[in-house]
Amino acid sequence: MINKQWILKNFPVGDIKEGDLVMEETSVPELNENDVLIRNIYLSLDPANRGWMSGRASYVDAMKTGDVMRGGTIGVVEKSKNQKFKEGEIVNCMGGWQEFFITNGKGVRQIPQGTGFPLDSYMSILGMTGMTAYFGLLDITKPQSGETLVVSAAAGAVGSIVCQIGKIKGCKVIGIAGSDEKCQWLVNDLGIDGAINYKTENIRNRLKDLCSDGVDIYFENVGGTITDAVLTRMNINGRISLCGLISGYNAESLVPGPAWGNLLIKRIMLKGFIVFDYFKRYIEAYQDLTTWIKEGKIKYKNHIVPGLENAENSIKKLFSGENEGKLIIKVSEDTTQN
Amino acid sequence: MINKQWILKNFPVGDIKEGDLVMEETSVPELNENDVLIRNIYLSLDPANRGWMSGRASYVDAMKTGDVMRGGTIGVVEKSKNQKFKEGEIVNCMGGWQEFFITNGKGVRQIPQGTGFPLDSYMSILGMTGMTAYFGLLDITKPQSGETLVVSAAAGAVGSIVCQIGKIKGCKVIGIAGSDEKCQWLVNDLGIDGAINYKTENIRNRLKDLCSDGVDIYFENVGGTITDAVLTRMNINGRISLCGLISGYNAESLVPGPAWGNLLIKRIMLKGFIVFDYFKRYIEAYQDLTTWIKEGKIKYKNHIVPGLENAENSIKKLFSGENEGKLIIKVSEDTTQN
Repeated sequence: MINKQWILKNFPVGDIKEGDLVMEETSVPELNENDVLIRNIYLSLDPANRGWMSGRASYVDAMKTGDVMRGGTIGVVEKSKNQKFKEGEIVNCMGGWQEFFITNGKGVRQIPQGTGFPLDSYMSILGMTGMTAYFGLLDITKPQSGETLVVSAAAGAVGSIVCQIGKIKGCKVIGIAGSDEKCQWLVNDLGIDGAINYKTENIRNRLKDLCSDGVDIYFENVGGTITDAVLTRMNINGRISLCGLISGYNAESLVPGPAWGNLLIKRIMLKGFIVFDYFKRYIEAYQDLTTWIKEGKIKYKNHIVPGLENAENSIKKLFSGENEGKLIIKVSEDTTQN
Repeated sequence: MINKQWILKNFPVGDIKEGDLVMEETSVPELNENDVLIRNIYLSLDPANRGWMSGRASYVDAMKTGDVMRGGTIGVVEKSKNQKFKEGEIVNCMGGWQEFFITNGKGVRQIPQGTGFPLDSYMSILGMTGMTAYFGLLDITKPQSGETLVVSAAAGAVGSIVCQIGKIKGCKVIGIAGSDEKCQWLVNDLGIDGAINYKTENIRNRLKDLCSDGVDIYFENVGGTITDAVLTRMNINGRISLCGLISGYNAESLVPGPAWGNLLIKRIMLKGFIVFDYFKRYIEAYQDLTTWIKEGKIKYKNHIVPGLENAENSIKKLFSGENEGKLIIKVSEDTTQN
């Protein structure tokens, strides 16, 4: 049995270039005692993947060149020599950029079947994306009704969920996104209060117009000049949830962060977070999110690209903003009953 | 009666230059109903003063050119047409860079007399400096025994108090300062666990040596490259109290702050604060600090320069690090009984 795998050949410098990731074929070995063979169905492509390629340890171990590219997956158990997993079970794990994943089961968790939610939703709204939005907004910033929330990368997978949770909590929500179409989708389809196209509009002036009472909460996905603009409009004792800094992920040298001066004089509370820290509380988010989806209060878009061979080209869309919704590679057929 | 006053003539660009502040004489006017005439005894010189000269509103109103330079003072009531204040009372207020200050009493508070603490201590350890150190460390970062605390500008007025409160709370305390003499004073006289001379030593390497268990708390007074070095050594879920950013105060253009990436991957909580926000809780700090001074657990140094005419030259010492302890101008004789 052949396994196609994307191998990290070089730590990319700047943009990901041809040859940094190379697809290779290898044969699937026999299982050892306690091993599980998983066939990957969906592969999650996320901005954070770029950091994993850097060769530096962060909240996860450093990758080495020659490793299969790391990635979050949903798959089906094809064979199991581990009593905790049965053939046919659907599981979520870090299965990597490959067709098959062999694991001893550590970090692998079953996904409930028959819930009525399609399997790809567990890769987005009911997966890491939804958890990130939920805990990053609610746990870090504790939004109160009537407050003004600004979200950057607002039309992105996480940002669009943050916007809608903000509305559910009674906030005035302003999104910053990279095209008129995205801005219209945010306002017209998701019902937020205003959106700014950072590529064509003056962010400072538009924030002044849209946030007449200042900004109480900023959900940070991007870093750089957009952040500086938001900081100038923040209210005293504002809160910032630091989720991502995508504007700097492809930088060839360290990009200085936004100036700290406004954090000081405005007494801002800023907190970075990593969604994995909330693992034990995922059930809280799951309960709220499934309720909100059923009530029609949260919509989500998955941008599913078929074919593992498209992983490398597709991840670049995250940095150009070409993806529409959560970017997912369909690695193999979904033969499940969800 | 003549009043000598330092007038802000220009908003300084970069370093404070000759002519930005000019000393002028004016006559003291008659008091109106509710007015109080205060003779300034001590004038506080602080890094934050540089921001007040910028012409931009921050946590205080913007200064205008032609204004008497703003500054914290201790003085004695010389005449009062306000029933809340009696002649001879000692008061703390924003009396400015001048010999006499006329006010309606707003923001003026009496200093207790006969406490056994010299009057200048109310300008440092028992004044804004001590309050800043106390609340900035304890309220923002909640240090726990056994944790590692790093303090920048550690030999400065605020930093040296923070170091000692950190020791009182059982922390391992590492200071960063700008001369070997300051480092020796911190370790030998104040009893902290280690000190780094940022002008001659490699901060990253020294932090690695001195903070073998990483850094849990960073008390931030400086910004810039020192901060970047500390961030690389911080532990997951570390806390940063953002008190000052003196390395950028004289910058002619906006200096980008330290990169935010480490704040994210290390889930750092950062909080800016302004000591005035704690006004109603000053009594808590006062009680603890006076106890600690009496017990010999806290030492402080005041660097008192006689003569209002030396205010402009003296404030420059803060940015070159030439001051030794809290920088205070003695404007007139202390005729009180403290």
